[in-house]
Amino acid sequence: MSVLALSGGVGGAKLVRGLSHQLPAESLSIIANTGDDGIHSGLLVCPDIDTLIYTLSGQSHPEQGWGLAGESWQVFDRLGELGGETWFRLGDKDIATHLFRAEKIQQGLSLTQVTRALCLAHNIAPNILPMCDELFQTKVITQDGRTLDFHEYFVKEQCGPRVESIAFIGNPSLSSDVEAAIMQTGALIICPSNPFLSIDPILQVPGLQSLITERIEKRLVVSPIINGQAIKGPTAKLMQELALPVTNESVAKKYQSIATHMIIDNQDAVDKNLLESMGLKVLVTNTLMQTLADKKQLASDVLGFLGVK
Amino acid sequence: MSVLALSGGVGGAKLVRGLSHQLPAESLSIIANTGDDGIHSGLLVCPDIDTLIYTLSGQSHPEQGWGLAGESWQVFDRLGELGGETWFRLGDKDIATHLFRAEKIQQGLSLTQVTRALCLAHNIAPNILPMCDELFQTKVITQDGRTLDFHEYFVKEQCGPRVESIAFIGNPSLSSDVEAAIMQTGALIICPSNPFLSIDPILQVPGLQSLITERIEKRLVVSPIINGQAIKGPTAKLMQELALPVTNESVAKKYQSIATHMIIDNQDAVDKNLLESMGLKVLVTNTLMQTLADKKQLASDVLGFLGVK
Repeated sequence: MSVLALSGGVGGAKLVRGLSHQLPAESLSIIANTGDDGIHSGLLVCPDIDTLIYTLSGQSHPEQGWGLAGESWQVFDRLGELGGETWFRLGDKDIATHLFRAEKIQQGLSLTQVTRALCLAHNIAPNILPMCDELFQTKVITQDGRTLDFHEYFVKEQCGPRVESIAFIGNPSLSSDVEAAIMQTGALIICPSNPFLSIDPILQVPGLQSLITERIEKRLVVSPIINGQAIKGPTAKLMQELALPVTNESVAKKYQSIATHMIIDNQDAVDKNLLESMGLKVLVTNTLMQTLADKKQLASDVLGFLGVK
Repeated sequence: MSVLALSGGVGGAKLVRGLSHQLPAESLSIIANTGDDGIHSGLLVCPDIDTLIYTLSGQSHPEQGWGLAGESWQVFDRLGELGGETWFRLGDKDIATHLFRAEKIQQGLSLTQVTRALCLAHNIAPNILPMCDELFQTKVITQDGRTLDFHEYFVKEQCGPRVESIAFIGNPSLSSDVEAAIMQTGALIICPSNPFLSIDPILQVPGLQSLITERIEKRLVVSPIINGQAIKGPTAKLMQELALPVTNESVAKKYQSIATHMIIDNQDAVDKNLLESMGLKVLVTNTLMQTLADKKQLASDVLGFLGVK
C-alpha cells in the first residue's frame, strides 16, 4: 500500500526521511507546502521543497534547519559588499538549485515538473509534489496591523511580531499530479509540521482536503506538540497568540475535519483518553526525532498504526 | 566640455577606462550596448554594462575579456553537478551583480536606475547609461537559416556559424536619461567596439542617432580595425561573411551617416587620404590598447583631436 505525506520543512522532512527508509520509493509520495515560496533576490525560492530534497538526499545542514551542509557564501558575501538585500541568505550551492529551477520554469516547465527534475538531479526516488503549481502565498497579519510575507515574519523579524491571523493569497488549483497521488494512495500522514503555517496552506488548495477525505480512509496526524511545547519553530508562540492552548487537544481540533488517527508523545500519554473521546484512534510513542534511528522508529510506528506494514 | 561615449564590452571599455583617467567624472557619460542582454539561468545578465563597471572599477579579469578577477565558481560547479545548463558560465561574484539587479528590478526600478545603483556600489563616478530600458535584443541570423541570440552565437557556438544578417528585436524607446546625456554633451566618441554587434544596436534605438547628429557637432569613431584585423572578437570574420572588406574604409562607410572624425592606427596611415576624401577628419595614432598607459594615451589623443582638452 502506498502512503501520502503532507509536509512542511524541517520537522516534516525528518519524518519523511524516516518513511523513506521504511517504504519502497514507489510507495511514498509527499505533498509539500509551497506557501512559503517567494522571490528572493530575483530568484524563486521554495524552502520546504528544498528542505525535503536536501533532507532526503542526506545533504541538509545538520543543525541550522535549512540549507545544505558544507555550504559556501561567495555570492551573498559579495552581495553584502554591494549593499544588496541579504537578510534572506542563500548559500552558493543552494543558489544553484534556484538557478536550475529558474532555467526550467523559463523553459515552460511547471513547478511540479521542475521539482521532479530536481529530485532526479539529487537521486531522490520518492515523489515530492508541490501542493500546487501556482504561487499561493502565506501571509502573516500581525497584531500591529501589518501584512508580512512568511519569510519577512519568519526570517527577517524572527517570528517576533504577535500574530493576529494568517491568510493565503493566490488562485491555486488542484494539479493533476496531486490529484493522482491522492487517488492512488492507501493512507495519509500529516507530518509534525506547523498546522497553521505549513499544513493549512496545503489543505487550503481548493478541492484537496475534500478529495483526501473522500478517497483516503485512514488519515493520521503526528502531533507537533510535546508537553506543551513545539519541538522547533514558532508553533507554540503562534498558538498562544491565536488564543489556543498549546495542547494536543488544540491540534486535534484543528485537524478534526480530516484526521482519523493521531500519534502523540509518551510525555503526553495522559491526553490519550481525551483525544479518543473526540473520535480519534490514538497511539502513544516517542515522537521526538533526534537521530536517524528515531526517525525510522517513528516512521515504523506510523506505518504499523496505519496497518501499512 | 563633457563627452559621450558609445561602447560595447571589452574593446570599448578599454577606451572608456582611458577616458575616465583624462576627464573629471562629471564630464564623462557612456551609453552602453544592451543588445546582448538576456536571461541566463533565470537571471537578467547585461554583459556590456557589467564589463564597463568591472573595467572602470579595476576589477575586471585581466585576460579572459569578461567577468571579474579572482572569481570563484561554487554556484556553477554545483549547477553542473545537478545537470543544469552551464554553457554561459557565471562566477559567484558576478552572480551577486545579477541578484542585485534582479532585486532592484523587482522593486520597480528601471534598468537605468539599477545601473546607476550598481555604479555607486562599485564606486564608479562616470555616468553609465543603458541604451534603453526595454529588452532590445540582437539576433544573429546564420547562413544555415537559424536565428540565434547573441550569446548563443558568441559563447555557445563560439562565433562559428557564418552570419547572413543581424536583426534587433524589441520595442525600445529613447530614455529621458539618454536624451539628457545627448543634449548636454559637447562631443561624441564611438569606441572601437564591433560596429555591427555592439554599436549598431545603440544606433537602432529610435530617435537616438538623429538626436546625436542634430545636437552634437563633433562625432568621432575609433576604428576597431588594425591592418585588416580586429583586435579581438568576431568583427573581421563577421565583416567577411557580410561581404565587406575588413578595412577602415568599410568602417567609415558603416558610420558615414554619423561620424565626422575618425582615428586609425599607425599601421594604417596609408588609409588617411582615402578616408579624408570621404569627408572625415582623420587622426593617425596608436590605437592598440595593451596597457593602462596605452588607454590613457589613446584617450588623450581622442580628446585632443576633438578639442576637448
